[in-house]
Amino acid sequence: MSKVQLYDTTLRDGMQGQGMSLSATEKVRVVEALDRLGIQMIEAGFPDSNPKDLELFELLASVPLERATIVAFGMTRRRGVDAAADPGLAALAGCFAPVVTLVGKTWGLHLDKVTKVSRDENLAMIAESVRFCAESGKRVVYDPEHYFDGWRDDSGYAIACLQAAAEAGAENVTLCDTNGSSLPHQIEEATRAAIEALAGSGVTVGIHAHNDLECGVANSVAAVRAGASLVQGTVNGYGERTGNANLISILPALQLKLGYDCVPSDRLRLLTETAHLVDEICNLAPDASQPYVGRNAFAHKGGLHAAGVEADARTFEHVDPAAVGNEREILISELAGRGSVMSRAARAGIVLDEDAVRRSISELKEREHRGYSYEAADASFELLLRREAGTYEPLFRLESFRVITEKRADGRVETEATIKLWIGDERYIRTAEGNGPVNALDRALRAAITEQHPEIAEVELTNFKVRILDEHHGTASVTRVLLDSSDGAASWSSLGVSENVIEASWEALVDSLEYAFQPRSPREGSEAAGAIGDA
Amino acid sequence: MSKVQLYDTTLRDGMQGQGMSLSATEKVRVVEALDRLGIQMIEAGFPDSNPKDLELFELLASVPLERATIVAFGMTRRRGVDAAADPGLAALAGCFAPVVTLVGKTWGLHLDKVTKVSRDENLAMIAESVRFCAESGKRVVYDPEHYFDGWRDDSGYAIACLQAAAEAGAENVTLCDTNGSSLPHQIEEATRAAIEALAGSGVTVGIHAHNDLECGVANSVAAVRAGASLVQGTVNGYGERTGNANLISILPALQLKLGYDCVPSDRLRLLTETAHLVDEICNLAPDASQPYVGRNAFAHKGGLHAAGVEADARTFEHVDPAAVGNEREILISELAGRGSVMSRAARAGIVLDEDAVRRSISELKEREHRGYSYEAADASFELLLRREAGTYEPLFRLESFRVITEKRADGRVETEATIKLWIGDERYIRTAEGNGPVNALDRALRAAITEQHPEIAEVELTNFKVRILDEHHGTASVTRVLLDSSDGAASWSSLGVSENVIEASWEALVDSLEYAFQPRSPREGSEAAGAIGDA
Repeated sequence: MSKVQLYDTTLRDGMQGQGMSLSATEKVRVVEALDRLGIQMIEAGFPDSNPKDLELFELLASVPLERATIVAFGMTRRRGVDAAADPGLAALAGCFAPVVTLVGKTWGLHLDKVTKVSRDENLAMIAESVRFCAESGKRVVYDPEHYFDGWRDDSGYAIACLQAAAEAGAENVTLCDTNGSSLPHQIEEATRAAIEALAGSGVTVGIHAHNDLECGVANSVAAVRAGASLVQGTVNGYGERTGNANLISILPALQLKLGYDCVPSDRLRLLTETAHLVDEICNLAPDASQPYVGRNAFAHKGGLHAAGVEADARTFEHVDPAAVGNEREILISELAGRGSVMSRAARAGIVLDEDAVRRSISELKEREHRGYSYEAADASFELLLRREAGTYEPLFRLESFRVITEKRADGRVETEATIKLWIGDERYIRTAEGNGPVNALDRALRAAITEQHPEIAEVELTNFKVRILDEHHGTASVTRVLLDSSDGAASWSSLGVSENVIEASWEALVDSLEYAFQPRSPREGSEAAGAIGDA
Repeated sequence: MSKVQLYDTTLRDGMQGQGMSLSATEKVRVVEALDRLGIQMIEAGFPDSNPKDLELFELLASVPLERATIVAFGMTRRRGVDAAADPGLAALAGCFAPVVTLVGKTWGLHLDKVTKVSRDENLAMIAESVRFCAESGKRVVYDPEHYFDGWRDDSGYAIACLQAAAEAGAENVTLCDTNGSSLPHQIEEATRAAIEALAGSGVTVGIHAHNDLECGVANSVAAVRAGASLVQGTVNGYGERTGNANLISILPALQLKLGYDCVPSDRLRLLTETAHLVDEICNLAPDASQPYVGRNAFAHKGGLHAAGVEADARTFEHVDPAAVGNEREILISELAGRGSVMSRAARAGIVLDEDAVRRSISELKEREHRGYSYEAADASFELLLRREAGTYEPLFRLESFRVITEKRADGRVETEATIKLWIGDERYIRTAEGNGPVNALDRALRAAITEQHPEIAEVELTNFKVRILDEHHGTASVTRVLLDSSDGAASWSSLGVSENVIEASWEALVDSLEYAFQPRSPREGSEAAGAIGDA
């Protein structure tokens, strides 16, 4: 099948996203992950722009890579300056990267309003810059900015820019939809025209799309169908404004859906892991609804869906989740029947006899009637099954707690929680302050159990959501609290429901911590669970 | 220009998304917002599936809508049952909605593996169900599930399903990419074939896409370019797995980019506001990088971009942000612009001089930086303007409060609040119990002020939402509380932000009650305000 080169610009264009910032060593981790996935070209940055990028290029020069080629990025020469005298081009020519990507103008509007460069001078800037890098021994990719806007405005001039780069020795020109203004059919038409114009030159054509119309992936695929053989994008679609085209979705579309050869076939299974790892490195929470790799991407409600997937996965799955390293997820809901309960139990390693299954279903229905909703609370659901299976091991026995929040005459607000609990025959009383009642309770509880369970320090509460279930009665209604937790490796969600938001939060908090210490839970807490059993 | 009907299924298919749940009155607020935006068809749900949907249909029957038509959704008749004897179809026929959408099968794999219905019986189920609804006086949309998978598998049978619906009286068949398995060119080809097969029948064709390949928007646009004239989708792309096609991105692509006529041209400016309002109602944080409506969608870095945009906005913007109700460089705020402040003040009858406008903008910016977000908190926004205008009248002066929640050894949970406050020279101390800390505070506060302000009894808190703003720090982060209130005639929303959820709730509670008693507020509380002035 025909080959398409994937070109990652997470470390350059992706870093334009709001709040994105990585150290040089973090960037090296991203490069290594992308190399493992089989990405061929990795744009690292400007080798001369700042000390951080200089450090990165120094580090990268000695990182062994299996397949990937490092690309250095820069601009065409400045106006009126000889290419050989341009410090930016000199830095590109002097760096270790075998490939250099140069960005330049194509659109008359930009020449007139922004750079004030004549059309002829612009063509000379492109040609001389490409030639300088090529003659320095670099493979050159030319990125014409605003290509599609330029082509719609004056297709002849846009093509002339491509030809200038091609004749000067570029191996590829990658058409950039810089403002993200184009729809797939427009991308397809313009890409086809570019390929025709360069026919016979040996120069290949690529695509660089943005997601401003929510079409970044479709635009990239459309360009490939029109003949483009290189796709620039970022992991998880990071980038300024609405992001760049998402390579994590483009790769399976090209390779699994359309049969192009992008990465070695055994590497696609690293897709989910890579997407989440890069999220982690960037300190971003993975998007649960992200195509292919999100936690919900292959989630099925119970009932008909679950039964259909059992019978033949193709009935409800557009691709095998394992092919992209993801897993099927059966959601628990009012519609869920015994099939969902069984498969969930099996996955958690819980053995349920016939009676326990019946009890679980009836307990589930009764609780959902009271406002519990287990779809987003995997940890609480697993604990419910464990209770019915008889393998539930409580972390402690609560005697009582008290939380006081005071707003004083001077305006200061203080919260403290006191907790009394038993672990085995030992009674613990602890008081802690917090910046809110749940935080104070969490601290007091940790203070009480940390002596017997020091591993508790690894568990962090990462998110906290509260909803009122019956809005007709406002603050006097049932409250549902959803708590997300993580121990760095795995993450899970727990649930509490009560008229009292403190009580509901407490329930979710206890489920969250107990889940972390159940045997065979994802954090392998079997030693900890053993300790509980002894207590 | 040719017309395309937008058909919203947020309240039905969107609710399949993980953790999505709205009360009947919240759904009515969504319907009203979509009607204001100009959406033509709004699918509300199954009129017979549960008491909540029954309540919704009862409420909707008397909601005045400007343009939108309410659609009821259901399935084709069960196998072996006469359409007239099918309780689901009877409920559809009997409900007030003028349009009924019926979903049915198209794909042999589903007939063989899931429903075990023969191909002929399936055609009869489609035809008889459509005919029954049409003869009951309904306009009928037929939704063939898994249409594109079915068409790739056996195009003749897929077309036969459409023809069965068309001949039985459907006004539209909407091709569903139920598993989200298709790419735009595949959608385009199959849609074109369906339109050809139905040529001359007067039946129109629609598209219902999902986002599993990150192509939900592109697929919808591709179908329209192939001749489809109805698009089903959800607000912000809510939906199961990776979501449905996002109407918020489809609408501007069709209307602004391709010139189709979807909503009245003055309504597109409500796009951003509508997208954020629905997020708020669903208790979801708006996505800052969402196309068209995200806070970063038109954000520009400094330097060349900012200069270019100054010179000519087209250089870096694919569309005028104002056309979709968004703003350029809105990183700080959407409301903190002078225009929003002025128009809001005028609407509330607040007179702001030049200095007060400046102070309001700077106060808003400062507060938004701390996590306040006034988009869904009209009451708190108005109070902020009143404070700057110098017309703010406090209801009382707080001395202190204390809230205690205790979970006792017997498992009982008790909460009490004590409050000390002044009205004029009078000091009030009141203690009240509640089923949660906010409820107890609310009762104690009412007990303290009811003597001087007996009208307070009319104000009811109707909803309460809590969100953590910085997910990275869980319960130790800033908390935002949104409180909805009503006095039976009007309803309003207030806001509180604090590290401490009790403090944040208190702030929102006080704003809610004070708003009710401001002069010229929607509840015409001028007498009450007079009483405050005397005290």
